[in-house]
Amino acid sequence: MTYCLSLLCREGIVFLSDSRTSAGVDNITIHPKMRIYAREGDRVLCLLSSGNLSLTQSVAELIEADMAESGPEGALPCLLNRPSLYETVRYVGEKVRFVRGQDGPAMKGEDLDFYGNFILGGQIGGQPPQIYRIYSPGNAIHASRESPFLQIGELKYGKPLLDRAFTFDTPLDEAVRCGILSLDATAKSNVSVGTPFEVFCYEAGTLDVRRRAVLHDNDPWLREVRDTWDAGLIELVRKLPSPPF
Amino acid sequence: MTYCLSLLCREGIVFLSDSRTSAGVDNITIHPKMRIYAREGDRVLCLLSSGNLSLTQSVAELIEADMAESGPEGALPCLLNRPSLYETVRYVGEKVRFVRGQDGPAMKGEDLDFYGNFILGGQIGGQPPQIYRIYSPGNAIHASRESPFLQIGELKYGKPLLDRAFTFDTPLDEAVRCGILSLDATAKSNVSVGTPFEVFCYEAGTLDVRRRAVLHDNDPWLREVRDTWDAGLIELVRKLPSPPF
Repeated sequence: MTYCLSLLCREGIVFLSDSRTSAGVDNITIHPKMRIYAREGDRVLCLLSSGNLSLTQSVAELIEADMAESGPEGALPCLLNRPSLYETVRYVGEKVRFVRGQDGPAMKGEDLDFYGNFILGGQIGGQPPQIYRIYSPGNAIHASRESPFLQIGELKYGKPLLDRAFTFDTPLDEAVRCGILSLDATAKSNVSVGTPFEVFCYEAGTLDVRRRAVLHDNDPWLREVRDTWDAGLIELVRKLPSPPF
Repeated sequence: MTYCLSLLCREGIVFLSDSRTSAGVDNITIHPKMRIYAREGDRVLCLLSSGNLSLTQSVAELIEADMAESGPEGALPCLLNRPSLYETVRYVGEKVRFVRGQDGPAMKGEDLDFYGNFILGGQIGGQPPQIYRIYSPGNAIHASRESPFLQIGELKYGKPLLDRAFTFDTPLDEAVRCGILSLDATAKSNVSVGTPFEVFCYEAGTLDVRRRAVLHDNDPWLREVRDTWDAGLIELVRKLPSPPF
């Protein structure tokens, strides 16, 4: 299982992913699900993926092959030369369609889900930062000020915290904390979601990759966040008014 | 959708349920999903249900018909005269099997899920209090000190809080608060789960129904719990250490 999310804020975007992949409980491996593609001063893009690993890896291979062949200025469409985020999202959607068309028919009757979900976000030039969720058929939706976060994979465990504590106006540092708590709640409740957690915190307007981390279980900051959160939650439950019945 | 849960503590058992039933988003109605059957001084049983409403209502009708025909001392097996909780659970499981066998074949091809899940718990005489989850095929599992809560229906949103804040040794009043928070997190994240919330707090050894409430959205205690929790959570996120990256 996988859990990836992206939080769109006034100050920028936070991208987060776990790194656990399972093909049954007896076959759990670690694969990165976050890919960052950037051209400093021009654009920063972050791609998160969930679903069938052969599909999501194939999509990434095709994207990277196009980049190698075309280059940013090349005539061939590639991830780093589309004129807008929307066109970039359409481009990724086409790759998803291509791989599903290529491998999907042979999957029929294999009793497995051959789907892939993606989040693509970032900023191109002076255009506003935005995040999109790309579905298996290649279609996509974007976030908004009213619905400022997108999730893929095992999304339910980590949603209540975001519903209560995160808005478009949440400061970027606080959004990082909300995202980590959402990821950690999921990892605690579903053993197939786990560390290392990858985090990329994009500051709007910088067009550069500056704040990025891979957090393992023994990361001191992650441990402090967990311990403070656990103790604080229990204390908060204790301080709630007693039931009058 | 439905969300019901039961928390087994050293001091007793908390049962909770929402009251919303949906047959599509344009057909949402309110139906109680908690049924309490008691014989003061002898036994207290609480049945929670989720799944297909015609199935869960049929099961309840059959249980109540047996009770009316047999009475507690009667020869006919009924919910209130089984020698143990385990036998009571088996009895309910048989009713579920009966209804599925009766209506299931005609459901084939109707493109709907004809399943029902139940939680049955309580105490009989001097036997220890216990809670069971009964599955659609009629089989069941019980809680333990290590896994002291059971959930049915829309269970993911409300699980992280229980995983962090609830144990078998949590005092009963605090367990009520944990349960309400779990239910409220679910209602906030899934519009098909909603108030009124029903709560039954059984104190071990009393063999009596004393603490019971139906909480509507305007209930002053529920509102105070929500407001305190919302403000406390946001404050707690703010107090977490800042990310070092």
